[in-house]
Amino acid sequence: MRALLAVDAGGTSTRAVVVGLDGVCRGFGTAGAGNPISSGPTHAAREVATATRRALASAGVERVDGPVVLAMAGSSADEGSGWIAAELAAAGAAGPIRIESDLLATYCAAAWEPDGYAVVAGTGAAAIRVRAGRQELVGDGLGWLLGDGGSGFWIGRRVVRAVAAQLDGRGPVTALTALLLADLGIRAGTSRAGGSRPDALQELVRSVYALRPIELARFSPLAFAAGDDAAAAGIRRAAGNALEEAVAAVRDPDVTGPLVGGGGVLAALAARCELPGGDGIRLVADGTAGAVVLALRAAGVGVDRATLEVVVGTLAERRIMSGGSAGYDR
Amino acid sequence: MRALLAVDAGGTSTRAVVVGLDGVCRGFGTAGAGNPISSGPTHAAREVATATRRALASAGVERVDGPVVLAMAGSSADEGSGWIAAELAAAGAAGPIRIESDLLATYCAAAWEPDGYAVVAGTGAAAIRVRAGRQELVGDGLGWLLGDGGSGFWIGRRVVRAVAAQLDGRGPVTALTALLLADLGIRAGTSRAGGSRPDALQELVRSVYALRPIELARFSPLAFAAGDDAAAAGIRRAAGNALEEAVAAVRDPDVTGPLVGGGGVLAALAARCELPGGDGIRLVADGTAGAVVLALRAAGVGVDRATLEVVVGTLAERRIMSGGSAGYDR
Repeated sequence: MRALLAVDAGGTSTRAVVVGLDGVCRGFGTAGAGNPISSGPTHAAREVATATRRALASAGVERVDGPVVLAMAGSSADEGSGWIAAELAAAGAAGPIRIESDLLATYCAAAWEPDGYAVVAGTGAAAIRVRAGRQELVGDGLGWLLGDGGSGFWIGRRVVRAVAAQLDGRGPVTALTALLLADLGIRAGTSRAGGSRPDALQELVRSVYALRPIELARFSPLAFAAGDDAAAAGIRRAAGNALEEAVAAVRDPDVTGPLVGGGGVLAALAARCELPGGDGIRLVADGTAGAVVLALRAAGVGVDRATLEVVVGTLAERRIMSGGSAGYDR
Repeated sequence: MRALLAVDAGGTSTRAVVVGLDGVCRGFGTAGAGNPISSGPTHAAREVATATRRALASAGVERVDGPVVLAMAGSSADEGSGWIAAELAAAGAAGPIRIESDLLATYCAAAWEPDGYAVVAGTGAAAIRVRAGRQELVGDGLGWLLGDGGSGFWIGRRVVRAVAAQLDGRGPVTALTALLLADLGIRAGTSRAGGSRPDALQELVRSVYALRPIELARFSPLAFAAGDDAAAAGIRRAAGNALEEAVAAVRDPDVTGPLVGGGGVLAALAARCELPGGDGIRLVADGTAGAVVLALRAAGVGVDRATLEVVVGTLAERRIMSGGSAGYDR
């Protein structure tokens, strides 16, 4: 069977798909983190190979001969494919490897149009402009220290700072405090047995500095759980504005296509209608279908609306059969 | 000679003073970083002992018998004095050791009054309320991730984010960009040879993530160098407001004493009259004179305005004789 392999390799999990030239997804497999920068090339290569073997097994084939597309976070593209070529060949995929941006894969997961935009907000946040099927410009995506406005880290950092400010007497009372202290197993209260600061604040300081900074992203759901709380609503509003700014920075009057959105934070904002300019946004769980589209195009297959619908529909069936959830990975 | 030892042990340098019961500073010595948490207890103990030996030598004595006061960042007080007792005794200071807050030392460096406030902004930022000569309450000082509003890190982070946003097309043009790129040796320009981002932005990302986060504090002077630039002025205004909030959080209507300010960022804001509520603030270079005051009090010596003037005057002479600068250490 002439078939292609598409892999969406993320910082948390990896998804591999075997697809025919007709766009029908025939096999699906998942594995752990497949990003060579955040996980290291050896670990990432093993996970990508594992997902590939599972996809091939699920398709009932031993090998695929066509091009292999690997969608990954932008900076990883610079790594080339040397770290993965031998492992992919050993797993059964010996075709030429093409590294693609995971942001472009997100776009292609819901847009057959050659021109348009994508915005993703998960742990990080970025927007892109797509022209003639290629990623032309990136907005933000600069990481937790320099950018990622509106991302899970960005929101989580504001959550912990708002709580610290309240406990410290510098900020207003917020519902985030009870939620965060409960999440961290810290007893609320105003006891100052430990000195000139409240005990709860001392414990918060200890807990937060024990984390890697990027792990603050795990507190972003609290900004949604706190509902109409003024501090939480303010953080969500600012996040929506920051994401809108990233999209605005890549807008071009000549590029009038659709806007595709991905990532857990973006989905949560869109669900609450708190994403300015997000009317008509096409939401996707991840870029897996887009990686499949990019593999089809790499093999010379034109992908129109009908083909994309075949890809998305058959991929969904494969995922359900494999028991895998959609999962937001960014 | 009955004499006391006072040590101001900071994260960058350590200052030791030999003082008589009359408040006359007789010896002064400096050494490297003396904070047991940031530098590790072994290194810190060696530096504190070195500064002590130099102070004793400069005073022309072999040992001091009175109490030893060690002023350090608040969290270090929890470490006790076990890490330093043997080294201090070996250096010639065998008296009982008392650990004091460096914020209280800052206050005492310019205020003989029992009640008042201090605010410090260097790499970090915090405010305290002092009542009856003791530190009663701390505002902020929660570190770069949870607080330190208005600190050098806080300002430096905003500087790099403003520059990244401009280069990324999301933020306004700012004079900070030329200053930061020059500081980092990055060539300005709009070339995009490297892909869908400007080369200068790519290099900025690489340079900034190669630093430890706290090192972003080194860019805070750029916010002052940029003068009337709107972005820089906005950052300075926000920093002044954050520091004012930290002071407001520790204010008590019953405590009406003076406000003492310390740290390089605070001095720079005060020099530009950009510190709200900073009228009449007493600025100090560091807490060394305050550590001396706390040592005198530990030995039962009452310190009034006249005594403080003796301490400050004779300490300044000793520093000049040793060729040491005042130096902002926080």
